[in-house]
Order: sequence, then C-alpha cells, then structure tokens
Amino acid sequence: MANSPSGESVINRVVRVLAAFTDDHPAIHLRQLARAVDLPLSTAHRIVAELEVEGLLERDSGGRLRHGHRLWELASRGSRAASLREAALPAMEDLLAQTGHHVSLGVLEGTDVLYLERLTSDGSTVNITRTAGRLPVHGCSAGLVFMAHAPEADQERFLHRRLNKLTNATVTDPEHLRGILASIRQSGHCSMAGIIVEESSGISVPVFADRGQVVASLTVIVPLGKEDLPVLVPQLRMASRAITRRLGFDPVAAGMQRSSM
Amino acid sequence: MANSPSGESVINRVVRVLAAFTDDHPAIHLRQLARAVDLPLSTAHRIVAELEVEGLLERDSGGRLRHGHRLWELASRGSRAASLREAALPAMEDLLAQTGHHVSLGVLEGTDVLYLERLTSDGSTVNITRTAGRLPVHGCSAGLVFMAHAPEADQERFLHRRLNKLTNATVTDPEHLRGILASIRQSGHCSMAGIIVEESSGISVPVFADRGQVVASLTVIVPLGKEDLPVLVPQLRMASRAITRRLGFDPVAAGMQRSSM
Repeated sequence: MANSPSGESVINRVVRVLAAFTDDHPAIHLRQLARAVDLPLSTAHRIVAELEVEGLLERDSGGRLRHGHRLWELASRGSRAASLREAALPAMEDLLAQTGHHVSLGVLEGTDVLYLERLTSDGSTVNITRTAGRLPVHGCSAGLVFMAHAPEADQERFLHRRLNKLTNATVTDPEHLRGILASIRQSGHCSMAGIIVEESSGISVPVFADRGQVVASLTVIVPLGKEDLPVLVPQLRMASRAITRRLGFDPVAAGMQRSSM
Repeated sequence: MANSPSGESVINRVVRVLAAFTDDHPAIHLRQLARAVDLPLSTAHRIVAELEVEGLLERDSGGRLRHGHRLWELASRGSRAASLREAALPAMEDLLAQTGHHVSLGVLEGTDVLYLERLTSDGSTVNITRTAGRLPVHGCSAGLVFMAHAPEADQERFLHRRLNKLTNATVTDPEHLRGILASIRQSGHCSMAGIIVEESSGISVPVFADRGQVVASLTVIVPLGKEDLPVLVPQLRMASRAITRRLGFDPVAAGMQRSSM
C-alpha cells in the first residue's frame, strides 16, 4: 500500500522521521532531518507537512521541528507501557526512598530491555539507564531476569547468539550464562556486578502478572561492592508484589512463592 | 502524497487507527477497529499489518490488537511532554505528600488542557483528570491560568467563543471571564470551585520557562469548601519554581516575582 518507487512504505518513512528526534536532538531543521533519515528534501518536506497537520510534529520559534504533544498523547492513551509505568511508580518511589539507590523498570523488546521508568537517587553511583532508553539483554540484570523466565527455545537462541563484551565483567560464554539463568530461577533474583559499566551493579527481580508471566523487571542500581542482597532483595520483592497486585493480579497465584533468601 | 481514492492521506488514517486505542479500550479486534475508524476491512487490515511490522501495534494471545511498546518508545524519546513531566515529577510528589491533595500538570493544546501527569491522593475528593486526558480550557483552573497569560488576540478569541456549562458553576459569560483572567494575572493563581464537577475545586499556578512563557499549569484538586488559599498557594508556587529551575531557567528571571499572597 502506498509504497514509494523505492518500495518503502509511507508508514516506515513516518516511523524513521519520528525516530530521528531524541533526547539529545529534540529539535531539528528540515534539511538536517532529511539527511538524518536519508530522504530527498522534497519527500521529507511532504511527510513533515502532513505530520504537522496531524499535530505529531510542530515548529519552534526558530523554525526547527520537534515532536508535538499530540504524539505523546496518542502513544500514552491505551498504552500498556504507560499503565505498567503508572502501576509501578508508587512502589518504585518507596524503593528509592527506602534504599537510596536508583530504581528502574524495564520490559523486554526483542533483544533489548526497554526502560519504562528510571528514578534517580542524587549522589548515588553511575546509572546509564534512561527512561525510554534500551540496554542489551545480556548487558543488564533486568535482561537476564527476562531470559531466565523465557520459553526454552528463546533461551537457547539467546545462548547461541554472538554476544559482545561491554566491560571485562560482561558474561558472554553460553555455559556460564546457562548457569546464571538457572540460579536466577532458583533464587528469584539476579545480581550482576559491573557488566555494563564497571562502577555499578544491578540487582533485579521479575514482576509477575497472570500465571507466572513476567511482564517487567524491577532493578536497583548500587555502587560496586555494595550489593547487600539480604537487605535489598526482600525490599525488591515487596515492591514487585505491590506492582503485581496493583496490576490486578494476586502475587501468590501469579507465581511469587513465599521464597527463601 | 499517497492519498486514497477518498483523498485521505495514509498518515491521517494511521493516526485514526492509533487513536482508536484508549485506556477503556486498549485491546481491539480488527473488525471492531475497522468499524471504529470507518475504514473498509481490507484497508484496515493493510494498515494494521504495516503497523505490526514497525512494532507500533501487536497482537495479544487472544488475537486482539493493542499498542506496541515501540509506539511509546518513539513518542517518549525527544518528547517535550515526557521531559516536562520528568522535570515536574519530584516537585509534584512533594506537593502531594505535603498537602494530601491530588496534583496535576497540564499543557495547553488548542482549546483543551492536556494532562501530562496526575498524582492521586487516596481517599481525597473527586478528580476527573487522567494522565493523557483532556479538559476544556474554560472548565478547569489550569486552563484559565493559560488563558490569563495568553496573547491578547487569543484571549479575545477565547472570550468570544460559545462556551458550554459543565456544571452550574462553570463561568461562560465573557465579561465575568475577563474579570477572572485579570485577577489571575494580578494574584498569580487561579481558584475555581466546582466548575467541572460540583464536589471539587481546582487551584492552579503557572509554570514559567524563559522570559515569562507559561509552559504548564500546576494544580491541586481539593474538596469543595477546603480551598485554603493562604496555605496552598505558597506551596504551589514553591513547586512551580522548583519545576522552572529543573527545566534550566531562573525562576525570578522567568517571571515569578516575589509575589504577595
């Protein structure tokens, strides 16, 4: 439908145009935009004009394009991401206040964890996650929690992918990873030290919905060497159960056993 | 570009399809969707198939369509709405904790206030605002704050529009409204009782950015009769200044005088 001579669909082009705007480049001139998404200026101009009519893009006083509030509105209504974030926020705030560590909530998107929310503790350790940012599954404790609870076929595919080292501590060996996944299933949490940045450790637990389905990973990011698991894991579990309940599920039926630590 | 025989653009149809999903109807079958957006089933099918390829829609286990996390991600990166919300959240939480009232943050979108965030105080009064929901400008204290600080031409257009009564207390008379706008500019806040639902009052202050530009309205929603302005307005102002500062502006230079109350 409505393909260009090059065979690209209009929808694909629109997605590329909208994706060109980021936290680092929220406002872009049309020429820059056309170059960034590799479209002829006239084509970019037509797409942008239509997106402006719909309110998805708008111009600032300097004539630069940026996302319109309408795009945020469209994506926020009826969004599972937004409702999951909203359900999780109070428990995440409690966790931040109680532990004094950064707290993040991620969902699985392909081979990445997409972060729906990140609460920052001033003066704590390095935290490279950003709201609406991504990290590779093997580079964060949140991702390994998802993998540990994924269907076996997905786990095997993951273990046989070529994984790159992000720090010296990143685990890429399939047999080592297989052992980590088994231990996550057994203990109910994942603690990984310095696998994405050397200064920080992530400690994650799954957030369950109906029938043991893992809908999110909840994480605290602590300075390397401060992984006080006997104190932190129970608090993470309390927060995770609160989120499960706020999503409308019974934490026990949803798969959170009264687990040992 | 790429218009259908009926002259509609693909982009307009995509927006209609995505907008069919709401908090009340987050998951829809294709047939329902086609009916809801008034498109032939075959057309809806083609658009949905492309949106699925891009990850903007996905199917649940029952075959129903819903927004994909990718749509939320696309709209959240580089979004002014998301960064404004993020800058405001800590001050909004403090306001909720200190006052015990609902707190909301809205931006002006045409003739509506679009709410970027709403924090709920359990057991407080009726609050009909929703995150990503809208209220008409004349039906909420947040909207009247925007109008009071709008360019004169916009104010005149607003005053001469035909406004409908939402409750008995909704002000629709142009001269009465003109007086309210003047008093908002003079006092620096807006307190309106029962203008959208009879049980609740809204108290709003502007959030300023550079050179006195009002980028948002910050509101507490209190039970009717509990409008304790001498206590609440200074707290609203404290929160508003904190948001202005977090946005990177100097609250004094941005237009917040050391105002009397």
